[in-house]
Amino acid sequence: MGRFSHTNRKLQIIFILLNNMATAIQQWRSEGRIAVWLHIPILQSRFIAPAASLGFCFHHAESDSSTLTLWLGEGPSRLPGYATHQVGVAGAVFDENTRKILVVQDRNKLKNMWKFPGGLSEPGEDIGDTAVREVFEETGIKSEFRSLLSIRQQHTNPGAFGKSDMYIICRLQPCSFTINFCQHECLRCEWMDLNDLVKTENTTPITSRVARLLLYGYREGFDKIDLTMEELPAVYTGLFYKLYHRKLPDKYKTMTLMD
Amino acid sequence: MGRFSHTNRKLQIIFILLNNMATAIQQWRSEGRIAVWLHIPILQSRFIAPAASLGFCFHHAESDSSTLTLWLGEGPSRLPGYATHQVGVAGAVFDENTRKILVVQDRNKLKNMWKFPGGLSEPGEDIGDTAVREVFEETGIKSEFRSLLSIRQQHTNPGAFGKSDMYIICRLQPCSFTINFCQHECLRCEWMDLNDLVKTENTTPITSRVARLLLYGYREGFDKIDLTMEELPAVYTGLFYKLYHRKLPDKYKTMTLMD
Repeated sequence: MGRFSHTNRKLQIIFILLNNMATAIQQWRSEGRIAVWLHIPILQSRFIAPAASLGFCFHHAESDSSTLTLWLGEGPSRLPGYATHQVGVAGAVFDENTRKILVVQDRNKLKNMWKFPGGLSEPGEDIGDTAVREVFEETGIKSEFRSLLSIRQQHTNPGAFGKSDMYIICRLQPCSFTINFCQHECLRCEWMDLNDLVKTENTTPITSRVARLLLYGYREGFDKIDLTMEELPAVYTGLFYKLYHRKLPDKYKTMTLMD
Repeated sequence: MGRFSHTNRKLQIIFILLNNMATAIQQWRSEGRIAVWLHIPILQSRFIAPAASLGFCFHHAESDSSTLTLWLGEGPSRLPGYATHQVGVAGAVFDENTRKILVVQDRNKLKNMWKFPGGLSEPGEDIGDTAVREVFEETGIKSEFRSLLSIRQQHTNPGAFGKSDMYIICRLQPCSFTINFCQHECLRCEWMDLNDLVKTENTTPITSRVARLLLYGYREGFDKIDLTMEELPAVYTGLFYKLYHRKLPDKYKTMTLMD
């Protein structure tokens, strides 16, 4: 340790830790371990660069800590990756009684196109809850979840920090009708006749497509277009999750024998 | 700078940078800026802890760099979050000619339950491609994407690093039939009669539910259960994305006027 007597104590501690880490890595490798995980509180981040020099890289970081990994196994790393998608949810709030659909135009866009209100899911938030919350925040309209209508997957999406985007459109039932829209987010907001939304060119391809899907459902029954939601129990955790699929007739749900 | 003459140059540089940063933050705040983003290469991570002491926290980190943010605006941060979901995809490979469905039992589980082969999406990978790849890696069976059948959203999922999980089940058409399963991942793999999968108790609730959905589709037409996929153009980027929803009759797709 004499070589550190002329410099500061922090560098000395880092040297000792890394020296031990390098030895430990050799040991773990000889024992057949395949990976090392390092969890580092943000205020201890001085250990990150030295760890990187031993081959560690970031797995993820959030708020006040980071996690680094070093793969010791054969071939490329088989460690599970971190979250790959942001989830955006839009609400198609449709009033069957008046055939009106709630649409907005975003502020600060190059083209003023009619679309459904929506936004990113908060951590831990269910799809339907995001739709109802975003619709209320943007338009002041209260609504209830009815079904899931459509899913879009998009990669290299601007604003997703290089990650992918899953965009889900839900059918919502309005519980209030007086618009009080957010001036920060929206330029316009209105109840539009569904036929007009189908006809307009002043909209996005996905909005136009979902408007046609809604018209199909309005005319021939929403069961033609809906994915319904049900809660089922998870096997290992005992928690419940929400599952969306086409409505399954009761006789198929309950059947236990056949041929 | 005299107070640093007795210590090392690195600490001096950090002091200068932070002093400037603190001054810069005051300046930016007075100019009405609402946020600061710091992108730090992993080998420069010695700047992270000092930045944290000024109020910065991790937004995300991946591979060889981290990104920190400092919110300067009023109220809680309105900065967009990082990816919140991992996406898992399973393939329900069903052979209509023989009424057989491809099922596996995972290795290293407490209970040996029949389920569909599947796994996590790679970054930038489309849903259908994940299903086909995972089925091939686990079972040796080649298949083609047919439709999306079901979506599950789950929070507090073990193995998701505190993030949420979106699990999607696709219907696939087999192109080969000789099983050659991965001994690392699977304990068993077989072509099972769909009726037997519906009847067995030795399966997960979601597998049982999707087996019933498939039986409904097999008996009454897959159009009853399928979400079909189509590519549409994105408005701003010029890229294409994949959109999944119930099949829309042609007359609704092409209609331009009505009432």
